[in-house]
Amino acid sequence: MTAPTSLSTALAVALAWPALVTADPLPSWNDGDSKARIIEFVERVTDPDTQDYVPPADRIAVFDNDGTLWSEQPLYFQFYFALDQLAARAEADPALLDDPLLKSAVEGDMAAIAEAGTEGLLKIVMASYADQSVEDFIADARAWLATARHPETGLAYTDMVYQPMLELLRYLRDEDFETFIVSGGGIHFVRAFSESAYNIPPQNVVGTTGETSYSLADGVPTVTKDPGILFIDDKAGKPVGIDMHIGRRPIFAAGNSDGDFEMLEWSTAGEGPRLGLIVHHTDAEREWAYDRDSHVGQLVRGLDEGPDRGWVLVDMAADWAKIWPKEPQ
Amino acid sequence: MTAPTSLSTALAVALAWPALVTADPLPSWNDGDSKARIIEFVERVTDPDTQDYVPPADRIAVFDNDGTLWSEQPLYFQFYFALDQLAARAEADPALLDDPLLKSAVEGDMAAIAEAGTEGLLKIVMASYADQSVEDFIADARAWLATARHPETGLAYTDMVYQPMLELLRYLRDEDFETFIVSGGGIHFVRAFSESAYNIPPQNVVGTTGETSYSLADGVPTVTKDPGILFIDDKAGKPVGIDMHIGRRPIFAAGNSDGDFEMLEWSTAGEGPRLGLIVHHTDAEREWAYDRDSHVGQLVRGLDEGPDRGWVLVDMAADWAKIWPKEPQ
Repeated sequence: MTAPTSLSTALAVALAWPALVTADPLPSWNDGDSKARIIEFVERVTDPDTQDYVPPADRIAVFDNDGTLWSEQPLYFQFYFALDQLAARAEADPALLDDPLLKSAVEGDMAAIAEAGTEGLLKIVMASYADQSVEDFIADARAWLATARHPETGLAYTDMVYQPMLELLRYLRDEDFETFIVSGGGIHFVRAFSESAYNIPPQNVVGTTGETSYSLADGVPTVTKDPGILFIDDKAGKPVGIDMHIGRRPIFAAGNSDGDFEMLEWSTAGEGPRLGLIVHHTDAEREWAYDRDSHVGQLVRGLDEGPDRGWVLVDMAADWAKIWPKEPQ
Repeated sequence: MTAPTSLSTALAVALAWPALVTADPLPSWNDGDSKARIIEFVERVTDPDTQDYVPPADRIAVFDNDGTLWSEQPLYFQFYFALDQLAARAEADPALLDDPLLKSAVEGDMAAIAEAGTEGLLKIVMASYADQSVEDFIADARAWLATARHPETGLAYTDMVYQPMLELLRYLRDEDFETFIVSGGGIHFVRAFSESAYNIPPQNVVGTTGETSYSLADGVPTVTKDPGILFIDDKAGKPVGIDMHIGRRPIFAAGNSDGDFEMLEWSTAGEGPRLGLIVHHTDAEREWAYDRDSHVGQLVRGLDEGPDRGWVLVDMAADWAKIWPKEPQ
């Protein structure tokens, strides 16, 4: 009986060997402090023999979306969708153009849009979907994402997700973390692609939430997107959104802008081991470089206070071997 | 080699035999139409060889809480908690009693409370937790649930969960459904016991949601319960809450009152196989019997329209072999 056993053992070792040697949960992360600290944290909280062990139910990890999981320059991608939807609506209903701001939006007058500020931006976005059913909105978003291309890279927007973050999401899930998106973007827009792009189902997406209502539309039970905002999932709204949707304080939080500051502050302030991570956009060559003075994804407090708070500051140019899954043509 | 193999086979058969013969996923449900229809539905949607097969990701099951998963008579249990909390607050801050309604509440003047209607009830509940942190509120609720006893049964409130529904929740989860609570009760109150009572984690609890805010309270990052209601998860609010928190239309929905009507209407109106279920309180001997004229859990439309809509009407007295896990002493 000795020979067959040895053969089986040899076979088992041979099969396991490559995995033992090369298993790198984060192959698109260059070796360095950021990668080492992430792996050290995950190994520590998942090792039952350490004092810092965290049971799976409490392994909640939250991720901002724009600028953290996919790109956000030169404008939040959802805004391009809103402009295209608004233009289609104006074609069917030219009275929309009586509003000067909406007219500027349809004409692509970015200076006028920028001047209107956050309030103007919300007005444009709400006008782009008002009175549409949630199901139709998501179908429209999916159809748009399938064909629209980024104005500078020519890539599909869903091809501008960050490969290193896809690996981080998968690594955490493999280690029995539950991953959530906590986005300032619209909850329904993010849900249109979160499952296919990130393997994150709709129930794990927290986002800015417009008013909705339930009614029988021509006899068909329907949830409709109404004008008006119920909840803005940004800044101090992020801990509120996490409490509302998840009901547990995360032990891992990743963001890239000061809109994520309170989320990281709250997540990393609880008892036990915790990790905050900020994606710092430092790569003007492969993506974009921006922080303190950016109109999108502004990052000031995170840079000034993050390191002292023990947050990992990811240097995209140095830490990431790859940005997107595919290179632009 | 024949003998050992036969022995192993015999052993395997012997071990498997009782399971094959007696495996009943719903042992506290009496044989009858309700039980048969639930099992038929679950077997159909989980069998890849049927046209009605539903992939696991879409197996979303939603349950009302009060009157569906636990009892709700003579008053919603959360209201007893609010009264006890309010009394404790009034002891520390007697100025609260300047308000006639709050005074009536603390004195247990149920007639005055009833007269104040839903608005008065909300006012009492909000006064019982205003400005408390979510963490403290949940800790208080857990402490209260650990010691408080129901005024009529003498049972702990969490011992008044329905044994047949515990089995149904487990059965669905065993068949790769994801189970959610969608309650008119307060989201934080339900989360205080959902995991220990039902094995439903906080992120799977949808409920009526008060305003909250994030701040540094004496330097400590804190989410606080403010006065004011963000969202009422009842009637037409239930499909809205499901869309907001889950983002998928359920294929199974269970309720017991007309507050659940729209949830069942919406859940059962989608494409593909769907099942609605109404717990009808018919058992005055073991629990309570009430429907059309009840001040709590009123059920009119569900009785009148449910059967024609194909919803299972559970007759508690006839369908349930057991009500609560333990009998009252």
